Amino acid sequence: MLTAHQIKILQSLDKKKFRQKYNLFLVEGNKNIVEIKNSRYKIKDLFSINPSELSFLNVETTEIVENELKKISFLQNPKDSIAVCEIQDQQKVNNIPIQIFLDGLQDPGNLGTMIRLADWFGIEQIICSEDTVDFHNPKVIQASMGSFTRVNIFYENLENSISSSENPTFGTAMEGENLYNFEFPEKYNIVLGNEGNGIRPEIMKLLNKNISIPRFGKSQSTESLNVSVAASIILGQAFSKK
Amino acid sequence: MLTAHQIKILQSLDKKKFRQKYNLFLVEGNKNIVEIKNSRYKIKDLFSINPSELSFLNVETTEIVENELKKISFLQNPKDSIAVCEIQDQQKVNNIPIQIFLDGLQDPGNLGTMIRLADWFGIEQIICSEDTVDFHNPKVIQASMGSFTRVNIFYENLENSISSSENPTFGTAMEGENLYNFEFPEKYNIVLGNEGNGIRPEIMKLLNKNISIPRFGKSQSTESLNVSVAASIILGQAFSKK
Repeated sequence: MLTAHQIKILQSLDKKKFRQKYNLFLVEGNKNIVEIKNSRYKIKDLFSINPSELSFLNVETTEIVENELKKISFLQNPKDSIAVCEIQDQQKVNNIPIQIFLDGLQDPGNLGTMIRLADWFGIEQIICSEDTVDFHNPKVIQASMGSFTRVNIFYENLENSISSSENPTFGTAMEGENLYNFEFPEKYNIVLGNEGNGIRPEIMKLLNKNISIPRFGKSQSTESLNVSVAASIILGQAFSKK
Repeated sequence: MLTAHQIKILQSLDKKKFRQKYNLFLVEGNKNIVEIKNSRYKIKDLFSINPSELSFLNVETTEIVENELKKISFLQNPKDSIAVCEIQDQQKVNNIPIQIFLDGLQDPGNLGTMIRLADWFGIEQIICSEDTVDFHNPKVIQASMGSFTRVNIFYENLENSISSSENPTFGTAMEGENLYNFEFPEKYNIVLGNEGNGIRPEIMKLLNKNISIPRFGKSQSTESLNVSVAASIILGQAFSKK
């Protein structure tokens, strides 16, 4: 049974302001919640319509009914359980061979997909510009499918991160070296830009090279690919030579 | 100025039932609306907060105010204009060298991204199983970024489409031939499955081969990639040899 006060707090956690105020974020669905077990995140509260399914977590679980779940879920089709987790201090990890830099990504689904993609390729860190969407956003967590527990996500001034990195940094742009002819070195950073505006000019200036994905369609109006699609094609190609 | 009756009809067009009843669907935003000009779609009504920007379309345009736009838009941040278009009869095109088959895709964003991806690579047709999300859904149209005007999308029984195709049909699965060693022939179909369940067993049986994307991350819990990410990596690789 949830109190009105609990419901009010949980419902506020789709907003960054309130996540920061309470230092909490939500993870929905047993499939995602089990990933927390082996991570540095801690579950503060666990609500489930079927607590026995999560008993192996050894976390005190409040049984709730479906109607309560609907009230506190941010999903269109709420799953079985919701974990309330504590936000951890983010630490930057140094000497990571391949990193993704995100310059002002706004769409939570794109960030979540990007985290999942990084995890698949074993990319351990994503550096986000300070205006990139917060990864504790429930839609990011959902789209990341548990991968947020394994990829280190760090927010900082991207110009500083590029300048201080020892590895070359490549951008993605309409004009650039053909991806299929590009030789990826052992270590590098790859920058992906904002959905509407791409990479900021200040960041562009700092790049060692731009990579472009050749277009095969006849239409010149397909302006660009979705940013997570572009990242997928580029990383898929980069890892084809591993 | 919009009448209450108009608003009611437009607001109903996020539901397939009402799109079919009125034979209408919505295209939002000038950037997408201009793509209709060179397509087989016809604009029935055009509403804009700034009609002069669309005057080159030679379509009678109703000027509306921002508040009205908000009422009829399905976007979180409504754009400038909304076009109401007539649904066209779908025709299957034969002898297409590379086709995408979608088996029960449910997420409108994924379908839209897939259409945009197909357009980029010049893939002219997507065949959808009958239970795949309707491409006239406003979220699909939005995510496709105008590419729905250039890619032919046809719904039919997927078992029939595979059986009647002269080209080999490849699936995507966790177990299969390593994408990076796979030799794509000149002509083929590629099947992508439902977000949660993958490709149906009945369809699996009809496939010539399964392709898998190697995982480089250490974690065994990254179960799968998002379906449009998987499609991007596979097509990116297939076209690398063109």
